[in-house]
Amino acid sequence: MKSLISVSVCLLLAVTVVAQRPHPCKSPPLMVGGVTVMYPKGQVFAAERFSYDAFGERIRVRAGGVEHNKTFHVDLLMLFREEVMYEISHRNRTCQKKPLKAPFQALEIPHDATLQAQVIIGSSSGPGQGLLVNNWMGKLPAKAGDYFLTYTEFGCIPITNLYHTTGNGYFLESFWDIVIGIEDPQEFFPPDFCDTSAPMDDKDTVTDFFEALLSTAN
Amino acid sequence: MKSLISVSVCLLLAVTVVAQRPHPCKSPPLMVGGVTVMYPKGQVFAAERFSYDAFGERIRVRAGGVEHNKTFHVDLLMLFREEVMYEISHRNRTCQKKPLKAPFQALEIPHDATLQAQVIIGSSSGPGQGLLVNNWMGKLPAKAGDYFLTYTEFGCIPITNLYHTTGNGYFLESFWDIVIGIEDPQEFFPPDFCDTSAPMDDKDTVTDFFEALLSTAN
Repeated sequence: MKSLISVSVCLLLAVTVVAQRPHPCKSPPLMVGGVTVMYPKGQVFAAERFSYDAFGERIRVRAGGVEHNKTFHVDLLMLFREEVMYEISHRNRTCQKKPLKAPFQALEIPHDATLQAQVIIGSSSGPGQGLLVNNWMGKLPAKAGDYFLTYTEFGCIPITNLYHTTGNGYFLESFWDIVIGIEDPQEFFPPDFCDTSAPMDDKDTVTDFFEALLSTAN
Repeated sequence: MKSLISVSVCLLLAVTVVAQRPHPCKSPPLMVGGVTVMYPKGQVFAAERFSYDAFGERIRVRAGGVEHNKTFHVDLLMLFREEVMYEISHRNRTCQKKPLKAPFQALEIPHDATLQAQVIIGSSSGPGQGLLVNNWMGKLPAKAGDYFLTYTEFGCIPITNLYHTTGNGYFLESFWDIVIGIEDPQEFFPPDFCDTSAPMDDKDTVTDFFEALLSTAN
């Protein structure tokens, strides 16, 4: 009973605090979790487990999915500060080392984003029944397109990133099972069988974060 | 501090309780809230406010949206037990009374649904940062198609209903701002300017719930 009252008080306080207009925010710098990626134009549907380190500008992604009705599996280690991406094959015990000339994209709401709406996914009528989120929108910088971002009010946890460009249509990322922190810091090391001193093939240069995720599925 | 500890205890208890496999569930019988409807095949995108009464088998829907790049607004009162649907125009102060020969669709997980996954939308690392939901799937009874339903673990609150049929493609409903209970019971009465004793035009018979929602947008 005491717990229930405390929860109610917490909820009341929460409602009071969020009566102020939300501000753009940065996600926690260390996270692991799952993402579902939908890119209908390229007929790509994928589920990924990722480890994210905004301090070190490093991302590890293990993805499996379907592209043009063909299944694929990839394991990518992206070291943005070192400008290197490793494409790892555990079955063949091989690594492809590619130049990565893309800026690190932190999970955050840009400062010039516009608040569309604050909504509750689910219900606020009972504890554990709803999630308070903010919907943001804005223009993509380089490409002629728009972004629509949904992040939690508390903790700035990503829920969905939706990008729309006239050329490529919709690109949707839905996040789930996010845990703050890194479960295994060695996720950001290339495996032992990778030759980290190998020269890179410049013709394979990856210049875009999406491209990095999608090109490997081909 | 006491509140924080209680919240932590609640979360721990919650995790313990849900260690058991979830069962199909029924949503609360009285709800009001918002839904976003996406039906790409028919190029329909709509946002609705609804009042839902599963006891009386009554639904009131006020929807606005776009169909084939044309905006529309509808106000529908569906009385499934009386087999009547009112299409209300406040501007013209008129009502169209149509026979409604569709079964009432309760918001629930069918008994024969299959659990796909239990996931947390957002994060479980902090209070207010995540929402525990269950993903269910199954076959649509009459039509050759599938459904994918996401409902909260606590309270059985609808989050998304996704229907897929080979003929009509995807039909997606996303729920938000759900409140348990009915704010105004008079929502289920036709407005004063409706002639409830008027005869019905049998050629306009609505035999399907989706049809009821979509036909009026034409």
